[in-house]
Amino acid sequence: MNENKIPYKIYLEESEMPKEWYNVRADMKNKPAPLLNPATLEPMTAEELGVVFCDELVKQELDNDNRYIEIPQKIRDFYKMYRPAPLVRAYCLEEKLQTPAKIYYKFEGNNTSGSHKLNSAIAQAYYARDQGLKGVTTETGAGQWGTALSMACSYLDLDCQVYMVKCSYEQKPFRREVMRTYGASVTPSPSESTEVGRKILAEHPGTSGSLGCAISEAVEVATHTEGYRYVLGSVLSQVMLHQSIIGVETKIAMDKYGIKPDIIIGCAGGGSNLGGLISPFMGEQLRGEAVYQFIAVEPASCPSLTRGVFAYDYCDTGMVCPLAKMYTLGSGFIPSANHAGGLRYHGMSSILSQLYHDGYMEARSVEQTAVFEAAEQFARVEGILPAPESSHAIKVAIDEAMKCKETGEEKTILFGLTGTGYFDMYAYEKFHDGLMTDYIPTDEDLKAGFDGIPRFPGNME
Amino acid sequence: MNENKIPYKIYLEESEMPKEWYNVRADMKNKPAPLLNPATLEPMTAEELGVVFCDELVKQELDNDNRYIEIPQKIRDFYKMYRPAPLVRAYCLEEKLQTPAKIYYKFEGNNTSGSHKLNSAIAQAYYARDQGLKGVTTETGAGQWGTALSMACSYLDLDCQVYMVKCSYEQKPFRREVMRTYGASVTPSPSESTEVGRKILAEHPGTSGSLGCAISEAVEVATHTEGYRYVLGSVLSQVMLHQSIIGVETKIAMDKYGIKPDIIIGCAGGGSNLGGLISPFMGEQLRGEAVYQFIAVEPASCPSLTRGVFAYDYCDTGMVCPLAKMYTLGSGFIPSANHAGGLRYHGMSSILSQLYHDGYMEARSVEQTAVFEAAEQFARVEGILPAPESSHAIKVAIDEAMKCKETGEEKTILFGLTGTGYFDMYAYEKFHDGLMTDYIPTDEDLKAGFDGIPRFPGNME
Repeated sequence: MNENKIPYKIYLEESEMPKEWYNVRADMKNKPAPLLNPATLEPMTAEELGVVFCDELVKQELDNDNRYIEIPQKIRDFYKMYRPAPLVRAYCLEEKLQTPAKIYYKFEGNNTSGSHKLNSAIAQAYYARDQGLKGVTTETGAGQWGTALSMACSYLDLDCQVYMVKCSYEQKPFRREVMRTYGASVTPSPSESTEVGRKILAEHPGTSGSLGCAISEAVEVATHTEGYRYVLGSVLSQVMLHQSIIGVETKIAMDKYGIKPDIIIGCAGGGSNLGGLISPFMGEQLRGEAVYQFIAVEPASCPSLTRGVFAYDYCDTGMVCPLAKMYTLGSGFIPSANHAGGLRYHGMSSILSQLYHDGYMEARSVEQTAVFEAAEQFARVEGILPAPESSHAIKVAIDEAMKCKETGEEKTILFGLTGTGYFDMYAYEKFHDGLMTDYIPTDEDLKAGFDGIPRFPGNME
Repeated sequence: MNENKIPYKIYLEESEMPKEWYNVRADMKNKPAPLLNPATLEPMTAEELGVVFCDELVKQELDNDNRYIEIPQKIRDFYKMYRPAPLVRAYCLEEKLQTPAKIYYKFEGNNTSGSHKLNSAIAQAYYARDQGLKGVTTETGAGQWGTALSMACSYLDLDCQVYMVKCSYEQKPFRREVMRTYGASVTPSPSESTEVGRKILAEHPGTSGSLGCAISEAVEVATHTEGYRYVLGSVLSQVMLHQSIIGVETKIAMDKYGIKPDIIIGCAGGGSNLGGLISPFMGEQLRGEAVYQFIAVEPASCPSLTRGVFAYDYCDTGMVCPLAKMYTLGSGFIPSANHAGGLRYHGMSSILSQLYHDGYMEARSVEQTAVFEAAEQFARVEGILPAPESSHAIKVAIDEAMKCKETGEEKTILFGLTGTGYFDMYAYEKFHDGLMTDYIPTDEDLKAGFDGIPRFPGNME
C-alpha cells in the first residue's frame, strides 16, 4: 500500500489551477428550460433578472452556449486562499472494506465555511462589487451558505446582510458568530425590518421562522435598497457554473495521474455540488468522448429526483421568485421534522433535472441512519468527520465498493466530499444516543407539497 | 502580487515529507533537567516512568543525544491522511497591513481535531499499540487533545478512555460527540469510576471538576488496569519531539523556495507547538549555523515564562506526577475565570524553559481582547478562523509586521497557526458582544500559585 504510485492526496500546483469554469449547458442537446416570470409565465428576460441579480450573473444564468467562462483574476486569488482542494485516495477506507475498488474523493471542507459553498459565494460577491454595488442580501438556514457569503464579502469589503431562520439563529449560535466574525449583519427571520417580516409576525406571533420566509425578507431588502442585490447558494445555473471548479480541478488531477473514474457520485440537494463535480465529465459523455456512471444521492426524506415530478414550479415557498422547470416535490413540501442536516430543498437544479430526465444520470435515495453509519465508518478510517450532506455520497460509494468486493471488479469510484460536520454535532449526538430515526414520506405527504400551488399549462405530465 | 514566485500555499510532495523527527535536545549544551520522582526527589528512572508511559516513549523522554529519531512507517501513513500541513504566504494580510514584511504561517488546523495535537496523539497511540497494550487513558479540558487521541486510537483499534472536565462535558458537548464518533469512551470528571473521583465527589458534592482532578483519574485508571498506559498532550519532551514534524516540514518547504525567516513566533502553553515549530531552526542556532529571533507568546493571564520562576515544580495540581524543572507559576495556579481558550497550564516544557533561561528565546505576554482583535483581522483577510491559542502568535506577528512598516525593513516573519476556532465560538461571541475582559494577575495572585507547594532544595533561586 505504501509503495503505491498514487499519493494519498493530490494537490495541484498553483500553476495547474483552473483559469476557467466549465459550462456543461454548452454540451447539452436538450438545454435546461428557461426560468419563467411568475406573473406572465414568459421566460425571464435579462432585464427582469437584473432587478434581483447583478448583470454579469444574469449573463451567466442565461448562457447556454459558451463552454468555458474565464474566472476573473481576483476570484482566482481568493481561490488560492483555500484551494486547490485535495483529491484524496481513500487507501484506509479501501483497506477497511477489503474491496478491490479504488476510491477517490474530492474534499471541499478545508475552509472556514466548511463546504464547497464558498466557490460560488466569492464569484457572486465579486460580480456585485465589480458592478459598483454596496452590498448583497441572502437567507441562510443552519448557516453554511451565510458563512461562505460573509467570508467572500469580507474579503471584498462588500456589505453582507443575512436573514437567518430564527430557530437556527437562537439554537445554533456558532455559525451566526462565524458570520459576525466576518462582519456580516445577521438578522433573525422573521424580523421587524421588512414588510413581509412584519406581516408574518403579525399573523404568526412567536413563529420560529422558515427558509421560505427568510428568502422573502432577503429579496425584499435587496430589491428595495439602492445598490443591493440578492444572491442564492444553490439551484441556479450560475451557481453550478461556479461550482464546476470542483470537477475541473478533479479532472486535471486525475488526468495528471492517468486515473479514469468508472462511477462518479455526489449528494444532491439543490444540485450545485453534484453538478459542479460532474460538469467536465458529463461534458465528455455528452460529446460521446467517454462513458461514466453518474449517481445523484438524495435523502429518502426529501426525494426530489427519485419521487418528484418534472415540472415548472416556484423556487420559493412564498411563490414570488421565478418558476424553474425541475424535478420537484412541490414548493409547499417540507421534509419531516426528524430530517437532520441540509439537502432539504423541494426542487433540483434545472440542468441536473434535464440530464436526469434525458437518462444521463441515475439517482438513489438513502435513509439517514444508514447515512450516519457510513459517516462514522468513514471518519474512523479516513480521519475527516464528514457533514451529514456529504455522507449521503459516502454511503453510496461504500455500497458500490462492496459490490466490487462481491464481483471482484476493480472499479474506480469518485465521490464528492462537500464538507465537514463540525457544526452538526447535535445530529451526531442523536445518532450516538440511538435517538435518530428515519422517515420515508408517504404518497399523501408528497401530494401535500403541491397543495395550493397552481398547475401551469404543459406541466405535470 | 499575483506574479510572485512564492505560491500562496506550499504543500510538500508526499516524497518530500519528513521521515525523522528532530530532537533539539541533542544540540543543547545545557540539557533540560531530568524529571524527579516526587517521593525520593531523585531523577525518574526508565523503570519508574514505564509504569505510566509505554517503553518506547520512556526511551524518547530520556533521550538527550540522538538528533534524528525515525518516524515509524505506520505513523507516516497516518500523517499522510492530514499532512503535509500547508506553509502559507500571508499575501492578503501583508497587503491589508501595507507592510514590507513577508509573513508566512504553518497551518496545523486542517484535520478533524482542529489542531497540531494529532501529531503526538498518533505517535503515543502507535507505541502503545506496538507494545501490545489494550488501551490508553488521558484527561481533556475543552476536548482538543481528547479528540486528537480518539482519532489516533480509532485508526489503530486501540481503546481510548478520556476523562473530561465535567463542566466542559456538559456545557461544550460538541467535542465530546466528536470523540464518541471516533469510538472513545468519555467520562465526566470527577466520576464514580475511580477512587480519587469518589473521594473528590464525597468531599465536594456537585463540583464541576478540574483538569488536575481529571489527570488524577486518568493516571489511576492507567496504572490500575492491565494493559493500559497514560498519555499526555503537551509539556513532556517526547511530545515536543513528535511535534517537531511541524518545524521539519516548514524548514523543508522554506529551503525549497530559498526562504529564511528572521523571526519565528509561536504561542506557548505547555510549549509543544512552539517547541515543535522551532526545533530544527533552534538546532541550527545552537550549532552556530544560523541566527533567528524566536518569540514565545503567552497570555498575560497565564504568564509562566514572563512572570514565573525557573524551578522544580509538580506537573499536576494533585502533586502525584513527577516534578519538572521549568518556568512555573506554581502548580496551584489557576488562570482567572475570564480567560478564554487554552494556554492555561501553570508550567512550560523543560526544554523550552532551559532555552529561555539560557537566552536563546524571547517571551512576550499579550492580553486577550487584543488577541481576539488580531484573530478577527486575520480571519477577514486570510479566510481561516483561528483558534484563540493560535491568535496569540498572530497578534505578535502583526505587531512585528507593523514595526517593519515603520522602519521599512523587509523582514521575513514565520508563525505557527496551530488550529481553528470552530469550537470556540462562545469566546468569539463574547468578543463580538463587547463582554470580553482582560485580567493581569497581581503579584498576590501569582504568589498564591505556590501556596501549599513544597519548596525543594536548590529551587526558587
